[in-house]
Amino acid sequence: MRTEKPLFIQVADRLEQQIKSELYAIGDKLPSIREMVTETGYSMSTINKAYYELESRSLITSRPQSGYYVSPLSSPNIINPTPSRPIISEENSEPEDLIDLVYGNMTHENVTLFSLGFPSNELLPIPKLNKAMVQAMRDLPNSGTSYEEIQGNYNLRKEIARAAFSWDGHFTEQDVITTNGCISAVSYCLMSLTKPGDTVLTESPVYFGILQLAKSLGLHVLELPTNMTTGIEIDALKKVLKTTKVKACILMSNFSNPSGSMMPESHKKEVVQLLAFYHIPLIEDDIHGDLYFGSHRPTNCKTFDESGIVLCCSSVSKSLSPGYRVGWVFPGAFKKEVLRTKLYHSVSATTLTHQVVGDFLKNGRYENHLRKIRKILYHNCTHYIHTILTHFPEGTKVSQPQGGFFLWVELDSKINTAVFYHEALKHHISIAPGRIFSFQNQFTNCMRLSFGLPWTPEIQHAIQTLGTLLCQKKI
Amino acid sequence: MRTEKPLFIQVADRLEQQIKSELYAIGDKLPSIREMVTETGYSMSTINKAYYELESRSLITSRPQSGYYVSPLSSPNIINPTPSRPIISEENSEPEDLIDLVYGNMTHENVTLFSLGFPSNELLPIPKLNKAMVQAMRDLPNSGTSYEEIQGNYNLRKEIARAAFSWDGHFTEQDVITTNGCISAVSYCLMSLTKPGDTVLTESPVYFGILQLAKSLGLHVLELPTNMTTGIEIDALKKVLKTTKVKACILMSNFSNPSGSMMPESHKKEVVQLLAFYHIPLIEDDIHGDLYFGSHRPTNCKTFDESGIVLCCSSVSKSLSPGYRVGWVFPGAFKKEVLRTKLYHSVSATTLTHQVVGDFLKNGRYENHLRKIRKILYHNCTHYIHTILTHFPEGTKVSQPQGGFFLWVELDSKINTAVFYHEALKHHISIAPGRIFSFQNQFTNCMRLSFGLPWTPEIQHAIQTLGTLLCQKKI
Repeated sequence: MRTEKPLFIQVADRLEQQIKSELYAIGDKLPSIREMVTETGYSMSTINKAYYELESRSLITSRPQSGYYVSPLSSPNIINPTPSRPIISEENSEPEDLIDLVYGNMTHENVTLFSLGFPSNELLPIPKLNKAMVQAMRDLPNSGTSYEEIQGNYNLRKEIARAAFSWDGHFTEQDVITTNGCISAVSYCLMSLTKPGDTVLTESPVYFGILQLAKSLGLHVLELPTNMTTGIEIDALKKVLKTTKVKACILMSNFSNPSGSMMPESHKKEVVQLLAFYHIPLIEDDIHGDLYFGSHRPTNCKTFDESGIVLCCSSVSKSLSPGYRVGWVFPGAFKKEVLRTKLYHSVSATTLTHQVVGDFLKNGRYENHLRKIRKILYHNCTHYIHTILTHFPEGTKVSQPQGGFFLWVELDSKINTAVFYHEALKHHISIAPGRIFSFQNQFTNCMRLSFGLPWTPEIQHAIQTLGTLLCQKKI
Repeated sequence: MRTEKPLFIQVADRLEQQIKSELYAIGDKLPSIREMVTETGYSMSTINKAYYELESRSLITSRPQSGYYVSPLSSPNIINPTPSRPIISEENSEPEDLIDLVYGNMTHENVTLFSLGFPSNELLPIPKLNKAMVQAMRDLPNSGTSYEEIQGNYNLRKEIARAAFSWDGHFTEQDVITTNGCISAVSYCLMSLTKPGDTVLTESPVYFGILQLAKSLGLHVLELPTNMTTGIEIDALKKVLKTTKVKACILMSNFSNPSGSMMPESHKKEVVQLLAFYHIPLIEDDIHGDLYFGSHRPTNCKTFDESGIVLCCSSVSKSLSPGYRVGWVFPGAFKKEVLRTKLYHSVSATTLTHQVVGDFLKNGRYENHLRKIRKILYHNCTHYIHTILTHFPEGTKVSQPQGGFFLWVELDSKINTAVFYHEALKHHISIAPGRIFSFQNQFTNCMRLSFGLPWTPEIQHAIQTLGTLLCQKKI
């Protein structure tokens, strides 16, 4: 007896076929739900579910107050980058000099900085922040010249706890500790949980700042095989946990830096359960979580954390104001330890800027701003991918992020992006070579490109230039 | 053949006799230099030198634009607290619970907080800071929402380097790294220089924050015998250096927390030479250095650092604005290491508040403010000591700081200040029990009192209350 598929799946399948056959081109707007109801005669609920299903297949994306669009990620030309296969017992070797080289060029003003992972100034609501700062000087006792509570600004903590509702987190201000940015939060967590010589697990590729931080604390980093779409590979994680003494795990479950991968909900849940079983804390860096392209905020690992093993870190440095140094952590069962580490290493955070961000959250100005920046990032991402597919050599693989800032581009294996970095820089373009995202000799033919720079003819031209340079290479 | 003393010494000796015989009372103004010249017929230079000599004997203090005053520290009733004699091989045992107890009461509003070591709000130039903040939002690119350079705000670094002139430091902005407050600077230095299991040397008593920080980094702390007037004892230091492998030394050479001691110049010089000989870096906490009572800014250990072994940390948290989180370090030969540690653990500091402090330094507003706060602290110190000498039990010993915030009070050996803490708190007075300033079971009959609270009848009454409570104890 054959079970018929639910109606909404049938509708979704048919729409998928139309998209795959390019009846709808990338970026095209789909009929609204109301139009589809009229057109097909199906119920509103069925169409709703069908669109939701297509979204979860990464074929379409919704933009609030606008409608549904064919995702650039539906292109049949897109080839996903290869999953990583780091050698799990490999000795650590740091690409420190390469990092210094790339980030020594951070302030060159005439360079197009695809290498940087933060929003360009045009994206920030600067006049509104300035107004909020003047208000904060009025509102705060002693205009913010006094130390705050060690745990951090009360209002900010309350608003962060409230905002967690969007990822099904149910917390109060008591569950939040503020920090000077996200990396300080990760640093306090690592210092609270580990001793030199301990082993920590990470994705691979992994943000070089995590590698450097771990190394500076004398930790051994075990990089795990990682899929560029779905994140860390669970089988590999299982295997390592069975055989190796691990002190902590560090992950970005949403729009990972640099791969752009997002762990499916089922993976998030399984990873948390696995780690809980082995009593291994998970430091989750959810700094990109609010920068989703879809219709709703994705969950994170903390969503599925029943035993308090997840320490979920984030900040507004990628979305609102890097220079304010406002970050935080939901420390779970490790609140006492993390609070002490914060106290011992920094006493407290900057009173004024933390108050301003609390205010921004409270008045809905942050959510308004996020809506704008999400749209822009999605728009940028689409155009960046298109231009790469058009101008980069055939066979170039590119990730299909559903949020965040980064594209992960995999080139022909003969291309060394650490060498290509210099060629690009001659044309005033800075890229992040793949090699800096691992302690091992991996990703030498990969690069990370930020799409945080606003889409302009100059940016388009810069990507085309990268493509032309790569095509000129005789391989 | 008898060598006659120089004329200025003879003058100084005679004045000392007059002061000791209470011909001049504590707080009395001495004749001006001009008046003395007229009176005695000696040269301006001789009188100048004589007054300087008396200052260095702690008998008089000068106040800029005011004149010379008999120091409270000249009182024949003052007995110096006993030098410490920690057991150099002692195992570490932390007074963590006691610290939590004392600093859990930090925000009680109806408690007189002699336990706190920062300026009360009345002492801060809040409207001027607010004005400078508005200016900073105008001046900074993107109103300070962007990351700053890793090394820190250029203007702030330049002004800090310039201000070093006052302690004979000759530096440029390249020699300064800014941090989120002084303890972050010390933390970065310790993390850059040590590994868990290493041994560091400190004074004894020592600020509990240093003890906690060292412990959290897995360090072994060796507390050295310390004189409450002249700081760490050099013979003890020599002995330890000969026999023990030491990774770093941490000192406050000026107005130490908690003892108030100031190392004489000759000690500073000798300590630096000794440590340089053994290639041991010295982390110097000079946070109180600008809060001197005398006529001029004292030198610090960094002044005598020829080989770059001194990492000199400071901040404006004790003088201008704790909540701004503005600190710095002159890292000497360890610039690269400290800069990396800062980058890995926090990326950068808060752009806006660091700009404001740079501005304050540049426009001379900081120096103006310091002049006021120094006068007030000196005034407070005088009154606190008087009141203690009058109302505390006979035999009470009290330190004679020449700057900073703290009095170190030593009571009869039968009094336990950890117990007395609770009695005082019942009268809404919070003190810092001596025990929290050591990993060893020392200083149980001592306490640290901050004179950062403005002198008022209520404060006077609170000190009297402490005295009355102590006198009631049958011992």
